[in-house]
Amino acid sequence: MKITAELCVIPMGVGVSVSRYVAACEPILRQAGLNPQLHAYGTNVEGEWDDVFAAFKRCHQAIHDMGAVRVFTTVKLGSRNDRAQSNDDKIASARSYFD
Amino acid sequence: MKITAELCVIPMGVGVSVSRYVAACEPILRQAGLNPQLHAYGTNVEGEWDDVFAAFKRCHQAIHDMGAVRVFTTVKLGSRNDRAQSNDDKIASARSYFD
Amino acid sequence: MKITAELCVIPMGVGVSVSRYVAACEPILRQAGLNPQLHAYGTNVEGEWDDVFAAFKRCHQAIHDMGAVRVFTTVKLGSRNDRAQSNDDKIASARSYFD
Amino acid sequence: MKITAELCVIPMGVGVSVSRYVAACEPILRQAGLNPQLHAYGTNVEGEWDDVFAAFKRCHQAIHDMGAVRVFTTVKLGSRNDRAQSNDDKIASARSYFD
Repeated sequence: MKITAELCVIPMGVGVSVSRYVAACEPILRQAGLNPQLHAYGTNVEGEWDDVFAAFKRCHQAIHDMGAVRVFTTVKLGSRNDRAQSNDDKIASARSYFD
Repeated sequence: MKITAELCVIPMGVGVSVSRYVAACEPILRQAGLNPQLHAYGTNVEGEWDDVFAAFKRCHQAIHDMGAVRVFTTVKLGSRNDRAQSNDDKIASARSYFD
Repeated sequence: MKITAELCVIPMGVGVSVSRYVAACEPILRQAGLNPQLHAYGTNVEGEWDDVFAAFKRCHQAIHDMGAVRVFTTVKLGSRNDRAQSNDDKIASARSYFD
Repeated sequence: MKITAELCVIPMGVGVSVSRYVAACEPILRQAGLNPQLHAYGTNVEGEWDDVFAAFKRCHQAIHDMGAVRVFTTVKLGSRNDRAQSNDDKIASARSYFD
């Protein structure tokens, strides 16, 4: 099953500056072939369900390995069986209605 | 990796009454041994990472099979490596501070 | 506009035990008349849009006042203009499909 | 209280193509001075708490006015009292750790 998804990780117990941990996910998501797109409230990806969540698990493990005792994560995801739709397609579709 | 998680599924393109689709997830989560706890904005579960996301995938597939062309889902999840903590533990911990 | 909503607050920079901060929201939500229902991944409430978000703002301020330099929050919310539906109605509706 | 936030609206009961509704939020957020940044899983904004949620309320009302009987929304938001941090600052901070 093809999905698009958004990952937002919050390491806990490591202070208020968490960019270093967010950044550690980027190579994991890229090497998994998920076409990561970083934004200010997460990273958007796309791929097969199993590949996406295997990579998200590696992100959690990497953040723990960096010293975060606790990791809180939010994910949004979507699947559709009528047609393929990438993250770029979604943005283009919304923009087509802009003035 | 042990996690607790919250699943909230929104079938799209099937009208505004979606309880039937939400309810279809319950036996999937129960049979996976994830101790599901339904509330008004999702279902909380707990278990091994791989078991949790395999079950969430089956929920998506079940909802598509019921006729929803598109499924939008939000997940919250947490892992910690200092100690085990169940969903019931989390609630009890917060309640311990109530008057 | 009547809404139902879920609030999940994550204080950052205060260590991994955050129950004390979560618990501080409960009296704020209760005194606002929002019928809070605590679960393991947040607190569900219901009421008028302005009352809900005024109370959520007071929760953020209370958590900052307790010493958290940074607060990360997730909210889910729903409005519908066909009929009134409480959080208890939503749960009952899903349960009606259970075996 | 200054915040950054992410808004993701899901109109229900209007079929599977929802870009038109998402797009309707853009001018509302822009006219409120919230510096909206559209991505594939929502729109990031920044501003004073009251301005942000007043605009989000107008988005809900606009989507109802376009014919959606039910609107499901997720919001992520953050406040910090140690220093100002824009959405662009957050992205730049994460990118500074990239190879």
